[in-house]
Amino acid sequence: MFYGWGAQLIFQQPIPLLAAANTEEGYDKAIVGALVITAAIIFVFSIILGEICTRFGLPSVLADLTTGVLLGSSVLGLLIFSQSGGEANGLLIKFLEFTTGTSSTVAQEAYKFQMEEYIDESANIGLLALLFTTGLESNLRDLIRVGSQAATVALTGVVLPFTLGTLVLIKIFGVATIPAVFAGAALTATSIGITAKVLKDIGRLQSDEGQIIIGAAILDDILGIVVLAVVLSLVKTGEVEIISIFYLIASAIAFVLVAVVLNRVFGSLFVSIIDRLSNPAALMLLALVFLNTFALSASAIGLEAILGAFAAGLVLGETKFQEKLEQLFRPFVYVYTTIFFVTIGAKVDLSVLNPAIPENRQGLIIAACLIAIAIFGKVVAGFAAISKEPINRLAIGFGMIPRGEVGLVFAGLGAASGVLSNSLDAAIIIMVIATTLVAPLLLRISFSENSALKTQESE
Amino acid sequence: MFYGWGAQLIFQQPIPLLAAANTEEGYDKAIVGALVITAAIIFVFSIILGEICTRFGLPSVLADLTTGVLLGSSVLGLLIFSQSGGEANGLLIKFLEFTTGTSSTVAQEAYKFQMEEYIDESANIGLLALLFTTGLESNLRDLIRVGSQAATVALTGVVLPFTLGTLVLIKIFGVATIPAVFAGAALTATSIGITAKVLKDIGRLQSDEGQIIIGAAILDDILGIVVLAVVLSLVKTGEVEIISIFYLIASAIAFVLVAVVLNRVFGSLFVSIIDRLSNPAALMLLALVFLNTFALSASAIGLEAILGAFAAGLVLGETKFQEKLEQLFRPFVYVYTTIFFVTIGAKVDLSVLNPAIPENRQGLIIAACLIAIAIFGKVVAGFAAISKEPINRLAIGFGMIPRGEVGLVFAGLGAASGVLSNSLDAAIIIMVIATTLVAPLLLRISFSENSALKTQESE
Repeated sequence: MFYGWGAQLIFQQPIPLLAAANTEEGYDKAIVGALVITAAIIFVFSIILGEICTRFGLPSVLADLTTGVLLGSSVLGLLIFSQSGGEANGLLIKFLEFTTGTSSTVAQEAYKFQMEEYIDESANIGLLALLFTTGLESNLRDLIRVGSQAATVALTGVVLPFTLGTLVLIKIFGVATIPAVFAGAALTATSIGITAKVLKDIGRLQSDEGQIIIGAAILDDILGIVVLAVVLSLVKTGEVEIISIFYLIASAIAFVLVAVVLNRVFGSLFVSIIDRLSNPAALMLLALVFLNTFALSASAIGLEAILGAFAAGLVLGETKFQEKLEQLFRPFVYVYTTIFFVTIGAKVDLSVLNPAIPENRQGLIIAACLIAIAIFGKVVAGFAAISKEPINRLAIGFGMIPRGEVGLVFAGLGAASGVLSNSLDAAIIIMVIATTLVAPLLLRISFSENSALKTQESE
Repeated sequence: MFYGWGAQLIFQQPIPLLAAANTEEGYDKAIVGALVITAAIIFVFSIILGEICTRFGLPSVLADLTTGVLLGSSVLGLLIFSQSGGEANGLLIKFLEFTTGTSSTVAQEAYKFQMEEYIDESANIGLLALLFTTGLESNLRDLIRVGSQAATVALTGVVLPFTLGTLVLIKIFGVATIPAVFAGAALTATSIGITAKVLKDIGRLQSDEGQIIIGAAILDDILGIVVLAVVLSLVKTGEVEIISIFYLIASAIAFVLVAVVLNRVFGSLFVSIIDRLSNPAALMLLALVFLNTFALSASAIGLEAILGAFAAGLVLGETKFQEKLEQLFRPFVYVYTTIFFVTIGAKVDLSVLNPAIPENRQGLIIAACLIAIAIFGKVVAGFAAISKEPINRLAIGFGMIPRGEVGLVFAGLGAASGVLSNSLDAAIIIMVIATTLVAPLLLRISFSENSALKTQESE
């Protein structure tokens, strides 16, 4: 979507770095070409791998992540970001030279420029669209219905992996506090989308266990995004002061609570405005105004804009326009969130996990530990469920395991903030992939009628 | 949609111009804030004015244009582009300082940066989305059915206003050749959307006249975009050589013809791929790959990427996925095309049309001439319709008058290329507004059963 006039307009500005390149004929055209080619490559690979994943019943987020790894510096070298290093694939540059008729130097510069300016920016739009739609899909009424049962599961599933992960990283592996906290935070996530899909597939979405899982996953999203907002603010200031942590936690919780409590006020304000309007574009535009207002408010009190995007989604998800809004934002999610996940994959330096190199072994051990903590923490959380009836607590725990796209948000933001080392970043991604792959399988087994686990649980 | 991480990542690059500002605390946050505020202002005004236009039966494109004029340097000063000059509204900067806690200098720089980088880039995405969906909505089968009848109308409606407009500007007003050609080209457009809506409202879409109007408008779009591609290439090279004009016209026509003729091949290739895929995101992503491939091909033979976007829309509009694609691209059109039209309005310097200043009078006379030629050319085109049955030729002519969004594409690109003077740019916009306002009225009158015009025509 990003070829065109923008490039030309940018170069009418007096940016010294670019002025030199600008005088070269064909630079504008090369940027347009690079954008068109890069976007087409991302989408083609995402379509092919997405199809393979869909056929095997795997979540499509894995397809996009794998697309990124394949296209990134580790394998094909078609998506190279300056922060992750490496050279762009020679064939790609040659193709760009051929199609736009420019020199190799111009083609290379144009390629770099569009990667930093347009592809990265699209990834960030994808992140916001993802958090807004996550909020939209998080049904607060469902949450309130199973609230008390789900609350202990969600709280245990956030506190246990976070504490365990952070402590193990600091005490055993000697990781510095802030990156350790960040990795710990990534362990708290639960991907509601992946679990809901598996539960639906096996017809257990409406079961007691299914409802507790979904309720806990929604609460988990809320807690996770609060944790993320707090951790990101810590990264920015670079200090871990008890007072500022308290302030951040309090303001993040207050922000979400105000959004949830004033939900009816905001929601009915939104509905009454839209009901009076006959312009078909108004719903989309007003939703964006809401999103912007919430993001600005979050930012004004020292939190992250993404927390505002999520809260706006939560509020609008309770109105009668929920379905329509999901439909309107879906194309943005298809396009921009694909780019977001692909860029996360592309920025992972897989070579740091090559076991043949001795220095890498610690990274691999860290990855294994994170996976173990990720699974253990959520399984224990399942047993924390409050219920008078006999329920399948193991299934609840398994249902909370997949980190999916929410875990990737942590990994992506951690890498972008520069706080995670390459090996810790790669270890988090491996943890996300492993939990996302293993959870649907475990969930199916634990729910299968004849399973020994199930029988044992129900008795 | 454009606050966030992008801004931060950009500043990790060594761009000297920005390095100074970067060191100032709060610059990143101020950019995020400026984007959020600017986008919210655009959408709120667009919603309010859009509602007013919808209530009065006026096309919403006028609302967005007026929003731009109101927000631009001419009135409120909330949307200021460096190319159009002027200072940003002091209150806006104060609000930005307040919400992000930065200094006035930082707030001002952040505001300028986001206007050039994000708002302008969004406008360009809007242009591509608009041309792609225009292609999608142009039904080639309809065109072929009324082709012979519509062809004379379309050709006359393109050739007559173009020639007359260009000649009058050069010979009478002494305008240079290239801007005169550009303004002439802007006179060729017909907005299919506006006319189709009016015809539908008065129940005449399926009448003979309605079908000829729609057929001619589609053909007019194709001819108009070919003319635009040729004119833009002329602007770039800055020369008007007969050989290069012939080459450009031939290649532009060939490009669209190849797309139309190979339409079945491309279309069934697209359909057979999508039919094999089960991933719900595949349709959107593959459509973008098609769009990108067409845009790159157009660019590779020296034409404009927008011609490729339009041709891709034409081809995919003939497949069974037309409706689904329109639905998927609609949110992009709502968001980005709104920004595109608003920025066109914001870039218009209305002060050049103030009749109190003597130097401005020529601009006003030019605007009046353009309006006269725009109406006259299309009315004559109506009488060029070939039909054995008695038809309402005046209604056909009136139906072709509104330039609407297509005329604005010309005005926007003309202003961006820097070839149009402020007064000529403003004159084109005035012409677009006038024709868009007057056409629905004339069309209703000419079709009204008891109208003298209609009786006269049918006899």
